Amino acid sequence: MLTAGTDLPQAMTRVAEVVESALETLLPSVEGAEARLVEAMRYATLGGGKRLRAFLVMQSAALFSVSETCAARVAASIEMLHAYSLVHDDLPAMDDDDLRRGKPSTHKAFDEATAILAGDALQARAFEVLAEPDTHSDPQARCELVAALGAAAGARGMAGGQMIDMQAEGKTLDGPAVTRLQALKTGRLIQFSAEAGAILGRAPMQQRHLLAAYGRDLGAAFQIADDLLDVEGSTAEIGKTQGKDAASGKATMVAVLGIDMARAHADMLARQAAAHLDGFGEKSALLKALAAFVVERRN
Amino acid sequence: MLTAGTDLPQAMTRVAEVVESALETLLPSVEGAEARLVEAMRYATLGGGKRLRAFLVMQSAALFSVSETCAARVAASIEMLHAYSLVHDDLPAMDDDDLRRGKPSTHKAFDEATAILAGDALQARAFEVLAEPDTHSDPQARCELVAALGAAAGARGMAGGQMIDMQAEGKTLDGPAVTRLQALKTGRLIQFSAEAGAILGRAPMQQRHLLAAYGRDLGAAFQIADDLLDVEGSTAEIGKTQGKDAASGKATMVAVLGIDMARAHADMLARQAAAHLDGFGEKSALLKALAAFVVERRN
Repeated sequence: MLTAGTDLPQAMTRVAEVVESALETLLPSVEGAEARLVEAMRYATLGGGKRLRAFLVMQSAALFSVSETCAARVAASIEMLHAYSLVHDDLPAMDDDDLRRGKPSTHKAFDEATAILAGDALQARAFEVLAEPDTHSDPQARCELVAALGAAAGARGMAGGQMIDMQAEGKTLDGPAVTRLQALKTGRLIQFSAEAGAILGRAPMQQRHLLAAYGRDLGAAFQIADDLLDVEGSTAEIGKTQGKDAASGKATMVAVLGIDMARAHADMLARQAAAHLDGFGEKSALLKALAAFVVERRN
Repeated sequence: MLTAGTDLPQAMTRVAEVVESALETLLPSVEGAEARLVEAMRYATLGGGKRLRAFLVMQSAALFSVSETCAARVAASIEMLHAYSLVHDDLPAMDDDDLRRGKPSTHKAFDEATAILAGDALQARAFEVLAEPDTHSDPQARCELVAALGAAAGARGMAGGQMIDMQAEGKTLDGPAVTRLQALKTGRLIQFSAEAGAILGRAPMQQRHLLAAYGRDLGAAFQIADDLLDVEGSTAEIGKTQGKDAASGKATMVAVLGIDMARAHADMLARQAAAHLDGFGEKSALLKALAAFVVERRN
């Protein structure tokens, strides 16, 4: 069924290399008084993370034979947007986390003001890269990418989800409320990553919707797996402070359903995600394998 | 010479009304758990400021007979971007200012986490609005707006300028260093506002460059006038804490040149700004009057 599973780690490593190289090109070090800001942007973005979102872009773009160079720019752009969100989430006024990807958070490695500005500048750069001609020959495609990323990142997306999450601390949310919170906070950007390939490939709307549905279910499964790791993993394994979400009373599906039920729910979502791609045939094998991977991972 | 000067206040008031209405439409209140975030975005953006950047967009667009509805969306987008920068600049980790436009700063009216997220979401919304079809029928124009705003807002623009400004506190910068700092921190966004009309109007590159040069000189003049007000104005008049920049040792042209020389330099820049528009004839009368206005204003 998910026979491509054995190729997945290799494919993910390759995408991580391709996106790292794109990020190096798109975020070069600079001379001058603003050098410190650019170093903080690079610190927050380069050399880290699973590059899940980049992988979704590259693989969904491959379904439509999009040029890898174009897809890598979109992948890098989404990774910049994601990195900015982590930098701001880790700030003392937000989740107050000193550790990220096994390294000091950006505000610890630099300072709070630099971290705020680095996040802000990463967001601006992400949109700038999407809008530049090298990203796609058709400006209509570039506009769709910008508008969709803006919606995914904003008040009805990632930022809105983070707001709900902060307000929920110490309160008890029910299942539907937690599902919506997570769908906004992490789901929308993961969904957009999967959709991006269809936008780049000028695919029919129906195929774009299938990839969006895949991304939505995958994102939900991924978030539950992440919350399970927070409860069960060690700090060394997950590269951020373990047990922190549970300790601060964060609203998660693990808290709502319990560990076993949450795991079963994540598995169901992963299978559902893969099923959306049945119509794409063998070409979607890696994306299907990814769905299985996100609920099995241990870091 | 600047005979349109008498019409300027009226024209500015009208633009402020048009952009306020556009912002109301583009930032509607929402139901749900993220309502607080949207309220903070509206608090930071609506009902305040001179709308200088919006005025530049609307008037430069009028030179090319661009539809006012389209121009108002771009004006609103730039005002959202500007508002986000003020929200973040006022944070305790940044300039730590409790007062803005005569009201409590966003982090005082709400809280720090909400202010950070509101700024983030305003930036995302600004790019989203620019990329949407209603902004211009030609997606090429929308992409140019997004890419130019991204560059103006990022590490080699506004965010970079703010970084340099933070690092310069307590140090003595020379004239060229202060000029570059201000050109990045406030100049690039003002320049983009003046250029935006040419992008919307699909104007020849030479005309776009003239408007950019106008915006650059106007922005520099505006910043010096702002710094003079910080030294000379009262808190009630300027709507933010008076004397704060001088007290914190901020790098300004007033500190470098002294009050009289700084005022003479601002006047020279304002005349130079207006001169760039000579080729546009009578149509540019309000933009020329604006150049005189920014160095004469008392709040």
